[in-house]
Amino acid sequence: MDAQLSGVTVGEVGPRLGINSQDNGFLRFHHFRIPRTNMLMKHSQVTEDGTYIKPIHQKLSYGAMVQTRVKLALLCAGKLACAVTIATRYSAVRHQSELVPGEPEPQILEYQTQQYKLLPHIASVFALSFSIGSLMKVYDKVTADIGKGNVNYLSELHSLSSGLKAVSSQDCSLGIETCRLACGGHGYIASSRLPHLYTGTNVVITIEGENTVLYLQVARYLIKSYQAAMKGKPVLPSVSYLSTPAAIQRTNSLSNKDLKEAFRTSSVSLVKEVEARLQKLCDMGQDFPHAWNTCSVSLVHCAEFHIRYYVCEQFLRTVESVAVSEGVKNVLLGLCRLYLIHNVILNQGHFLRSGTLSAAHLSLLEEELCELLAELRKQAVPLVDSFDIRDELLGSTLGAWDGRVYQRLYDEALKSPLNKTDVPKAYYQYLRPLMKTNL
Amino acid sequence: MDAQLSGVTVGEVGPRLGINSQDNGFLRFHHFRIPRTNMLMKHSQVTEDGTYIKPIHQKLSYGAMVQTRVKLALLCAGKLACAVTIATRYSAVRHQSELVPGEPEPQILEYQTQQYKLLPHIASVFALSFSIGSLMKVYDKVTADIGKGNVNYLSELHSLSSGLKAVSSQDCSLGIETCRLACGGHGYIASSRLPHLYTGTNVVITIEGENTVLYLQVARYLIKSYQAAMKGKPVLPSVSYLSTPAAIQRTNSLSNKDLKEAFRTSSVSLVKEVEARLQKLCDMGQDFPHAWNTCSVSLVHCAEFHIRYYVCEQFLRTVESVAVSEGVKNVLLGLCRLYLIHNVILNQGHFLRSGTLSAAHLSLLEEELCELLAELRKQAVPLVDSFDIRDELLGSTLGAWDGRVYQRLYDEALKSPLNKTDVPKAYYQYLRPLMKTNL
Repeated sequence: MDAQLSGVTVGEVGPRLGINSQDNGFLRFHHFRIPRTNMLMKHSQVTEDGTYIKPIHQKLSYGAMVQTRVKLALLCAGKLACAVTIATRYSAVRHQSELVPGEPEPQILEYQTQQYKLLPHIASVFALSFSIGSLMKVYDKVTADIGKGNVNYLSELHSLSSGLKAVSSQDCSLGIETCRLACGGHGYIASSRLPHLYTGTNVVITIEGENTVLYLQVARYLIKSYQAAMKGKPVLPSVSYLSTPAAIQRTNSLSNKDLKEAFRTSSVSLVKEVEARLQKLCDMGQDFPHAWNTCSVSLVHCAEFHIRYYVCEQFLRTVESVAVSEGVKNVLLGLCRLYLIHNVILNQGHFLRSGTLSAAHLSLLEEELCELLAELRKQAVPLVDSFDIRDELLGSTLGAWDGRVYQRLYDEALKSPLNKTDVPKAYYQYLRPLMKTNL
Repeated sequence: MDAQLSGVTVGEVGPRLGINSQDNGFLRFHHFRIPRTNMLMKHSQVTEDGTYIKPIHQKLSYGAMVQTRVKLALLCAGKLACAVTIATRYSAVRHQSELVPGEPEPQILEYQTQQYKLLPHIASVFALSFSIGSLMKVYDKVTADIGKGNVNYLSELHSLSSGLKAVSSQDCSLGIETCRLACGGHGYIASSRLPHLYTGTNVVITIEGENTVLYLQVARYLIKSYQAAMKGKPVLPSVSYLSTPAAIQRTNSLSNKDLKEAFRTSSVSLVKEVEARLQKLCDMGQDFPHAWNTCSVSLVHCAEFHIRYYVCEQFLRTVESVAVSEGVKNVLLGLCRLYLIHNVILNQGHFLRSGTLSAAHLSLLEEELCELLAELRKQAVPLVDSFDIRDELLGSTLGAWDGRVYQRLYDEALKSPLNKTDVPKAYYQYLRPLMKTNL
């Protein structure tokens, strides 16, 4: 047995966004013999006589990865909950500028642009948590099935967990950064905890399957399922909507049900368009891998849109069926409506291009969004309070429950070695003598 | 004279995104008398007998702020140039996955999704630099005019510098973060310099006029100018296009000129719609400040779109008139076309809603974007080389000119105290004895 091990930690120590305390090293094996019983043989096996036994499904070992992705998606939503709690409470404490000239400075939460920065992300916390909750149920079912040798739903689970991990890490990173920027200069202070929340969430975009790679895997599932559906073959629940052709029918009202249907039709229409382009490139003589690469930017958009549709649908379904008081239900319905409209407006191009929504519809939705912001502004603080994150866990000078932002900033500042004395020693030692010499 | 000075540095020391080494302190004056000659009386004056003389224009002191904003916009473009240089060179060195199953791993720059992450931001560096160059000329002219007592163009300068500072800091932050993510795990290593570039650029969103506030000032200028134009009054160059009504005419071809015209018409249409909503709210009895707040999310979108139109126009104008060889000109024209199409697609909702572009047009533009990515991919490395940033200034293990990424990472890693020995002392001191005890 000839073994060689070498490890080097790649990293650098410095006050940067980079993860310097993590092990970015490598480990090299050269003719190193691993005992058979140490081979982690859960799915594939090697018997004592050296016979290799294949797993019952090629992608069975993805199970652990799926679980990690679901957990990461949830982790991101948890960090976003912290960020919106901090920024919303701070926005209720901080007063600035004059909304009406001559009048006292209002809470910055009174500004529509501030409400727009916070409320859609508060809604995101609920939307993502509910969707991940639904996915957990799929996960439990599929895992139980696998135990019985049934791997039919594995691809469904793989697609949803990949997509949710990607959307959650993307939206939560953006949400936390928006919260940080919504706190102005104070958002840059480490003791706000917002910078720390950002770096801890943002890394999820890259780890456990980089988001672009994951979206492309979702897209592959979408294209395969669409092609199967077109041939009349059965497809799994999350993509079954692809079987019903995109009846490009312009909706008259703009109810949640209508918007959901517009989402469905636009998603089918997107998948259909990119599938046709793929087909055309292949017909023109490109091999499939190159045609796939040529369409990959559009494929990523398709996958992202499909997952956004899933999240909106799960949010709506949960809110409609949840057993809570009428008051709480109304707030949740308002928040869900805001989320739905916000997602439609952000992706308005797809809805307009599919012909499901018109320019006039979008103007109406924009006006409704403004009304919802004003309405939900009253609930903003109670909503983040409902996340019930203890001050000790939130760890933020800006976001503590009692709103004593300035006292906490001051107390924190006094911990700095520079503030041990009113005037630093360096002034007397260097600056004062220099200033007195009249250079 | 009764003087009291107290200063506290607000901040915390830690390896975070927050700016901890900067002075976040405050300074309090209490009955402190400032000598008359120390009052920085460039524009307003106080004479010896105590008479106050007003400046010739109320906003004359904005001059220095305008200059700072222009410089900050340029600073951001410079940092983006560093980031695209690093990420593009790394993408030409790094090989990963199989584009065609069974074939060797290609340079990651071969993947369309990677080209899409880098090339539009390479184009951004040119677009922003050219636009800021044009603005510098406006600045010099306006400053000279002010010296002669002519303050007519001050509002124009204020609007353009505010808007460009906002768009530049926003786009460069996003661009640098995209570059960082495009380098996978290595983008998180401090020695890549990408994290450092991000934090240095991102802060510009908040300082010297927070972006949302600046966009709202641009919007105020747009609405005022539009109202003046509708009454037949003259308006200044950057907003003169608002005088020509939005002739909602669907274009047949998609030349640069057509896209520019579509941009113009859509911008007029956006301003017109939000002005009408403002008017309607006032007619319904809201006072102007509250109506303004109710429309502020739309007003921000208006302002951003107007500035994007300005940047696209300046990019096109510069590339069309620049005196370079035919070969270089063709590359620049391709890059400008990519930038224009990318901006149209990102804002497709506005173009579709104004009726200037159709769904079919957008499909054609998306296909052209893909062709441009493939075409410009060949120029990607030469383009970033043309920024001519010395290795010593770039300071990146991933982006050095010679492409020796892995050797540099290795050399950098060896500088870590953890790598002074192959196996850390702690192993022999603590881990080994523990492992040998068979707990």
